[in-house]
Amino acid sequence: MSVNKESIMKNASTYTLVISCPDQVGLVAAVSQFVAQRSGSLVESNNHTDLQQGWFFMRNVIAAESMDGTLEEFRADFSHLAEQYSMEWHVRDNREKRRVVVMASHATHCLADIFYRWQSDELWCEISCVISNHENMRRMVEWHGIPFHYVPVPKEDKEEAFASMSDLVERYQADVIVLARYMQIVPPQLCQEYAGRLINIHHSFLPSFVGANPYQLAYDRGVKLIGATCHYVTSELDEGPIIEQDVIRVNHSCDKDDLVRLGRDVEKSVLARGLRYHLEDRVIIRGNKTVVFNA
Amino acid sequence: MSVNKESIMKNASTYTLVISCPDQVGLVAAVSQFVAQRSGSLVESNNHTDLQQGWFFMRNVIAAESMDGTLEEFRADFSHLAEQYSMEWHVRDNREKRRVVVMASHATHCLADIFYRWQSDELWCEISCVISNHENMRRMVEWHGIPFHYVPVPKEDKEEAFASMSDLVERYQADVIVLARYMQIVPPQLCQEYAGRLINIHHSFLPSFVGANPYQLAYDRGVKLIGATCHYVTSELDEGPIIEQDVIRVNHSCDKDDLVRLGRDVEKSVLARGLRYHLEDRVIIRGNKTVVFNA
Amino acid sequence: MSVNKESIMKNASTYTLVISCPDQVGLVAAVSQFVAQRSGSLVESNNHTDLQQGWFFMRNVIAAESMDGTLEEFRADFSHLAEQYSMEWHVRDNREKRRVVVMASHATHCLADIFYRWQSDELWCEISCVISNHENMRRMVEWHGIPFHYVPVPKEDKEEAFASMSDLVERYQADVIVLARYMQIVPPQLCQEYAGRLINIHHSFLPSFVGANPYQLAYDRGVKLIGATCHYVTSELDEGPIIEQDVIRVNHSCDKDDLVRLGRDVEKSVLARGLRYHLEDRVIIRGNKTVVFNA
Amino acid sequence: MSVNKESIMKNASTYTLVISCPDQVGLVAAVSQFVAQRSGSLVESNNHTDLQQGWFFMRNVIAAESMDGTLEEFRADFSHLAEQYSMEWHVRDNREKRRVVVMASHATHCLADIFYRWQSDELWCEISCVISNHENMRRMVEWHGIPFHYVPVPKEDKEEAFASMSDLVERYQADVIVLARYMQIVPPQLCQEYAGRLINIHHSFLPSFVGANPYQLAYDRGVKLIGATCHYVTSELDEGPIIEQDVIRVNHSCDKDDLVRLGRDVEKSVLARGLRYHLEDRVIIRGNKTVVFNA
Repeated sequence: MSVNKESIMKNASTYTLVISCPDQVGLVAAVSQFVAQRSGSLVESNNHTDLQQGWFFMRNVIAAESMDGTLEEFRADFSHLAEQYSMEWHVRDNREKRRVVVMASHATHCLADIFYRWQSDELWCEISCVISNHENMRRMVEWHGIPFHYVPVPKEDKEEAFASMSDLVERYQADVIVLARYMQIVPPQLCQEYAGRLINIHHSFLPSFVGANPYQLAYDRGVKLIGATCHYVTSELDEGPIIEQDVIRVNHSCDKDDLVRLGRDVEKSVLARGLRYHLEDRVIIRGNKTVVFNA
Repeated sequence: MSVNKESIMKNASTYTLVISCPDQVGLVAAVSQFVAQRSGSLVESNNHTDLQQGWFFMRNVIAAESMDGTLEEFRADFSHLAEQYSMEWHVRDNREKRRVVVMASHATHCLADIFYRWQSDELWCEISCVISNHENMRRMVEWHGIPFHYVPVPKEDKEEAFASMSDLVERYQADVIVLARYMQIVPPQLCQEYAGRLINIHHSFLPSFVGANPYQLAYDRGVKLIGATCHYVTSELDEGPIIEQDVIRVNHSCDKDDLVRLGRDVEKSVLARGLRYHLEDRVIIRGNKTVVFNA
Repeated sequence: MSVNKESIMKNASTYTLVISCPDQVGLVAAVSQFVAQRSGSLVESNNHTDLQQGWFFMRNVIAAESMDGTLEEFRADFSHLAEQYSMEWHVRDNREKRRVVVMASHATHCLADIFYRWQSDELWCEISCVISNHENMRRMVEWHGIPFHYVPVPKEDKEEAFASMSDLVERYQADVIVLARYMQIVPPQLCQEYAGRLINIHHSFLPSFVGANPYQLAYDRGVKLIGATCHYVTSELDEGPIIEQDVIRVNHSCDKDDLVRLGRDVEKSVLARGLRYHLEDRVIIRGNKTVVFNA
Repeated sequence: MSVNKESIMKNASTYTLVISCPDQVGLVAAVSQFVAQRSGSLVESNNHTDLQQGWFFMRNVIAAESMDGTLEEFRADFSHLAEQYSMEWHVRDNREKRRVVVMASHATHCLADIFYRWQSDELWCEISCVISNHENMRRMVEWHGIPFHYVPVPKEDKEEAFASMSDLVERYQADVIVLARYMQIVPPQLCQEYAGRLINIHHSFLPSFVGANPYQLAYDRGVKLIGATCHYVTSELDEGPIIEQDVIRVNHSCDKDDLVRLGRDVEKSVLARGLRYHLEDRVIIRGNKTVVFNA
């Protein structure tokens, strides 16, 4: 479903310009003219109008090499247009990789999958470090040349752990935090600071089976499909904006361990897609919902 | 996914024998030997053992023509074996069609789909009548040669409507009742009397979005897949044993009407599969869950 | 997957403008400015650049009510722009329904499905008539108020049949011809005249199992999925541009009749989606491939 | 879809008994009675009758601990029954892991996925060694503690390479050979010797796009889904019995590199499922087709 021109992202110089603003006549014309006047060619362009809310969303990938001026000049000039249309917007040079901090617990499947896709350039980012409350994947992480930080989270007092995490996130100047089946509460301060940049994978098809033990709950209810949900973390548990979901068929012969095993494949592919959409600036959040330009 | 030998069901004489009982060594041997001793050939045979609960489930389709003795003799003889192993069981001659009463409201898609599959012998049953609280599909129903009964359900007093429905169900000697997007409460007495034979289609992926307006709720939550669930009706709303579920992908460009439209296709195919499994004795209920032998 | 604003298509006055041309800087700007200058608001807008071929594709749905000028004026003015950029293009008023002639053989599932979606306004068109080489669905077709024409096609001499078909297509001034499992050769002259407007459903996942008896071939090969393909008809059998495809899982327990039965559901949904994309001007043909803006 | 009781396979002592023979009345009874008489309990039991060919297939997983006698005694006794019914059959102690030799080229995705599933006990086997005609994955393979053998395959003279491969396969006493995107011809002698135990992943939905460069062919044809096929290797290229297939949706915005990237996920999951079915004795080959008991 998701489609990305790897060649473009990696080999050529492109900018991605993302816009969200009140809808009005002439928006596409204004933006595309701005780009054309600087000799920019649109490599990929998507827009969506939410007619009920009167809101406009746009994402453009622009070939930068032929363009006149620097990115800074682009930004300075565009800010006038943005003001005129009350845009929330950003533009990014796609050659710059963002820094991702991954937090994980003892389950390795999502982390191993992210590493594989990162190594094969399917995920265009740096992985700055892994923070875990278990030691079991240190060897695997370090083998990939990535710093591993063990931060235990005692039940009785989480404050010290919270402080360590915040320090690490700050030290590595994380652009994005990924909870790859982290299974622990994230410091509330990080939730706030990284709103819209803190990504979780929940092992159920939300809003079914919020909270702990979703596979047991799915087993008990006798559902015929199980799923996974990639979403931004907010202060309300499992209630944040959904980026991506998927399901897999199960049946009466599956016990809970089978659901866990089958679910792993869904979790890792849903997280990989969600993270990818985020890193490629395909996701625009509005309220508690997302626009995802993934084709 | 579901696989059925239409040719067998329709052209040849077969019995279907369904068993549910505590697990013990020798069960398959005892049942298959019983059949073999009467020269019965197993056309299809499935079994499942729930190891956690120590429970055994079995479904056999037996070629009847070569068998010694009548169905009545089969029943009488098998009841001894059944008693020995504390079986819940039944056996059915597949040439006999079951009588289905369909209850519907103003939405026609599920009903039209059931009619098409019934006409093309994909659903092996009689459709005895349609009961509706709207008049709009009378012409379509009667064109198919099926009696149509208009039973309005006033908000203030449903007792008379309930009595009419019960009378109709009794008059037509329904074996199965299908709620094809009926959208009304079913008389509690029918729920009890038809436990395990009263089939509903709910327009969400349960347990998400129980109750009214699931498409609006799905739209508001911003899910990336919508679904439908076919289940047996119990006294608790949308909580009965699930027979079949499926989903379809949606995205930010779908408004609520789009979800309704896309959901129709999922609803009708999920209901058709669930009803088919029931009519072919592929479903065994235990507690609030089902075993579905669908391959 | 497919998403359509029914409300827009049906209730509001909109134009759809479709463009295909050599890529160059400023195309989106030129088109969107043209629309904005006439106070047209973009309700839906998609574009795609084929970087390898240097080709640009665009589809815009424009709210017409607020626009200055008539559709004829729009056409006249736009033709200058179109010439400048060497565009192939057309613009259509979405309130006008296109005339569809359906050709079918004895299998009814695709035709019944098209009728249902047409009646419920999911397919926005007129169905002008049905042409068939069998009489079996006359009653069903006429019940829907649609003319039915029986045109037998003798093996030895098809010329007379071909002439009758061409006459009928001309008499009804068909905009689109749909082969709903027609299973006969179409007059070559119609193929030419209706290039890009003659839609077929093939009962396999092309390019597997070209030609006759694909389900038998799929059964013999032991594939684990079967499929269907909706494509434009060209002079080469089953080789035309593909609009849509889908598959369904099968297994060893399926005999050929099971494949036929399971395949019916895929055929009808794939044809419905393909026809819908065509009627909504979502498909642009280039060479032997299609761009389908379906989200 | 596939369901396996990991707990059973790993923690408990079970046998798997697989049977293929001409169909006749009393087969299930004879086999299940044989097991019951030795106090064996059926943990999983599947059978299938091919009515057209008059052929019977069966797979039983038997709890071994409560059984009377050794596996050798079971084999000796069962051989009498097997002879009587002209069975092809085998029985295996599931605690014994089979030895798998993996052959790979420069693409790492399938190999990395097999390693991950093997480490997490999802694939119940030993990985004896990896043979490759490229050096690039030596470090990764050896990090997992698995011997890596570089066997270059010069175009002009493959005989020496063939001999090396055969020697390695013999030295490691391989039970199964997996071609994880090996992309080279396998020594014909290995094909013969390992008939039914030599598994390949082909990067297309067979029989579409046989041979080299299937993604390029898929791109050129403009298909809307791409797929992968796991099959046993025979002397005819890409024509062997199919074990498992799957597909993923693509669209006009995908160039060939996108198809390659999206296809990787399908390839690895299809190969993992196919290999798993094989290792769990779920696959029975007959002619050029397979029965796969995967639920």
